[in-house]
Amino acid sequence: MPETTASPFHLTPVFPRGFRCASRNVGLKPTARDLTLFVSEVEANAAAVFTRNHFPGAPVILGRETMKGGRLRAIVANSKVSNVATGEPGVANARRMAAAAAQEIGTSSDRVLVSSTGVIGVPLPIEKIERGITGIMADLQDDPMVGAEGIMTTDTFPKALSATVGNATITWVAKGSGMIEPNMATMLAYIFTDAQFEAAALDGMLRRAVRESFNVLSVDTDTSTSDTCVLLANGLAGTVDADAFFETLRAGCVRMTETLARDGEGATRMIRVQVHGALNDTEALVVAKSIVNSPLVKTMVHGADPNVGRLLMAVGKCFDCTIVPASTDASINGFRVVRGGLRLDFDDAVVRETLSREVVDLEVSLGVGDGSARVYGCDLTKGYVEENASYYSS
Amino acid sequence: MPETTASPFHLTPVFPRGFRCASRNVGLKPTARDLTLFVSEVEANAAAVFTRNHFPGAPVILGRETMKGGRLRAIVANSKVSNVATGEPGVANARRMAAAAAQEIGTSSDRVLVSSTGVIGVPLPIEKIERGITGIMADLQDDPMVGAEGIMTTDTFPKALSATVGNATITWVAKGSGMIEPNMATMLAYIFTDAQFEAAALDGMLRRAVRESFNVLSVDTDTSTSDTCVLLANGLAGTVDADAFFETLRAGCVRMTETLARDGEGATRMIRVQVHGALNDTEALVVAKSIVNSPLVKTMVHGADPNVGRLLMAVGKCFDCTIVPASTDASINGFRVVRGGLRLDFDDAVVRETLSREVVDLEVSLGVGDGSARVYGCDLTKGYVEENASYYSS
Repeated sequence: MPETTASPFHLTPVFPRGFRCASRNVGLKPTARDLTLFVSEVEANAAAVFTRNHFPGAPVILGRETMKGGRLRAIVANSKVSNVATGEPGVANARRMAAAAAQEIGTSSDRVLVSSTGVIGVPLPIEKIERGITGIMADLQDDPMVGAEGIMTTDTFPKALSATVGNATITWVAKGSGMIEPNMATMLAYIFTDAQFEAAALDGMLRRAVRESFNVLSVDTDTSTSDTCVLLANGLAGTVDADAFFETLRAGCVRMTETLARDGEGATRMIRVQVHGALNDTEALVVAKSIVNSPLVKTMVHGADPNVGRLLMAVGKCFDCTIVPASTDASINGFRVVRGGLRLDFDDAVVRETLSREVVDLEVSLGVGDGSARVYGCDLTKGYVEENASYYSS
Repeated sequence: MPETTASPFHLTPVFPRGFRCASRNVGLKPTARDLTLFVSEVEANAAAVFTRNHFPGAPVILGRETMKGGRLRAIVANSKVSNVATGEPGVANARRMAAAAAQEIGTSSDRVLVSSTGVIGVPLPIEKIERGITGIMADLQDDPMVGAEGIMTTDTFPKALSATVGNATITWVAKGSGMIEPNMATMLAYIFTDAQFEAAALDGMLRRAVRESFNVLSVDTDTSTSDTCVLLANGLAGTVDADAFFETLRAGCVRMTETLARDGEGATRMIRVQVHGALNDTEALVVAKSIVNSPLVKTMVHGADPNVGRLLMAVGKCFDCTIVPASTDASINGFRVVRGGLRLDFDDAVVRETLSREVVDLEVSLGVGDGSARVYGCDLTKGYVEENASYYSS
């Protein structure tokens, strides 16, 4: 698929009116930034979605409570330690982290969303974090990249993006490259805007946008215990057209999803899978995820081999979906390679050449209905194995 | 789990009365054996299970028809080309392969089961195979390892096993190391016995045994289009006790499943996952497969790191299962590492040491019911990526 020609995104990301951020090293990591604060100068209406994992981290448990108010002044996030599987003491530590940030900013704890990512099952070094929060307001900057850098873990580059809608701006800041098959959101994705919307409207738009973006991303089929996606609207730009706002919100979430896929752990290529003609959208999604998650498809893309058999295998293993070989067609980077369930006699060298691009598009048409789905992933490489086999949990 | 002390298996595998095999190079591969014949000197009652993939290979399509008779004299198998996604000409080629073997043996085509594994979507070189079958009866040998070697593809060693039950013998010959998450059987598993059983009884016993063995094996979550498991009983040893026969059949299928897991593509360790206390057996299986298939668990085992967080993450991402963190316990190689959803303060160095064994046992107790499941898999290594990224489909 070609990129849209008129990109709505700024060359250098900026914040909406009233938002700033700061990040510091507080001693969780040896030298890298490990604590980050995002603040709005006025209270913002807010909506959030969190991981569906049954072992949510303490920040997610607290975050669900915080979001009931629908109002936020700030987000405070640390890397290195995720504060997951830490029980009641973990939730108490998340509350202390919110309280410390609230005091520094001059607001109440229930206006501060907390995020922690990193190792699971070890206590949060809360004293270091509390000391580190003291005075951090003096470091606030206008550059969202500062915050994007502060929340990185195994990411290889900081991820921020911004766009204009009417008089308003939307800014996305995200992180995440492993343990990624978000089911409500990606690991951490923060979206800031100065547009004016009620919390309920933000919630509806965020859920729709997430469904077509972060929720159809899979780096490795593993769903993190910390996934959080939050949208803050401080209203300083006044009202903007809701349809235009949603379209830009959706486009930015998709772009950020693609950015996360490109930076999947060890990844060298992004994979986009489009399924058409499924019995319904649900079955289309099952088939698309089966393809994008197949280790044999992922390694075939890594090896730039147009292996039609692996593509058919991944479709065919969706046992409970309506699959009719005689009506199944498939394309690789726009080249038709399967018609009616049979491998076509395509120009192998030409298709192989296209597979060495940074973005690989796989398209399957099932010919049994109107369902469709689009999902995002990346190739499987020795780099992924290297990174995750050498990770020490203690 | 300790190995059973009194193993029912022979040190060197032998065939039951009346079974022999031969294998040859017929030019599909440069020099390795690529064509194999297993023959019983009398007709055997037989049962088989095949892949549930929606794109079954031509041999599977023909095999379902052949098995309606419940009687077999022989199995003929080639490696290198799988005869999958080849349409009507593919089925015609599978029929020619059965006919050629039937003529060589002196039986009818519907008494010969055909198997092909290898590249998908390219035509079967049927003339080479027909020429190669001619005269192969003169090569028949008593050693099942000859047949096991003949059906290998990416396997690193041939896989055969035998055991005595009463007056009878059971012999298992199997292959398979990648594209393995069988849903009715493993890629190819042939089981021979001289015990006397009707086809319907064989079918019932085979399905039960497969459910607890090959169907709970996953190397890479990918379900092959060629999976076939067949049991031939030629009756030359007369009747044996059915319960004793089933127990040995089941034990051999489990042992062969473990052997396939150990030889998973690139694998250095086998992983066994036992889940207890699930709401029911179905949910236990979902949780056990989630653990054994998690790339982060697989790389943690490869790296010999007791990463409790990844274990909890893999349990917690079973969104539709009943998971109660407060009642969830987990062990690694018999060492309790999680109690009530919280990481225990275990001796990291000791547990890490046990993880460098060839067999790793992960055990999870969910504490919400009586459901249990046991599944088999292997670690994820650079070797898997290497092997599958450098595989050329054409």
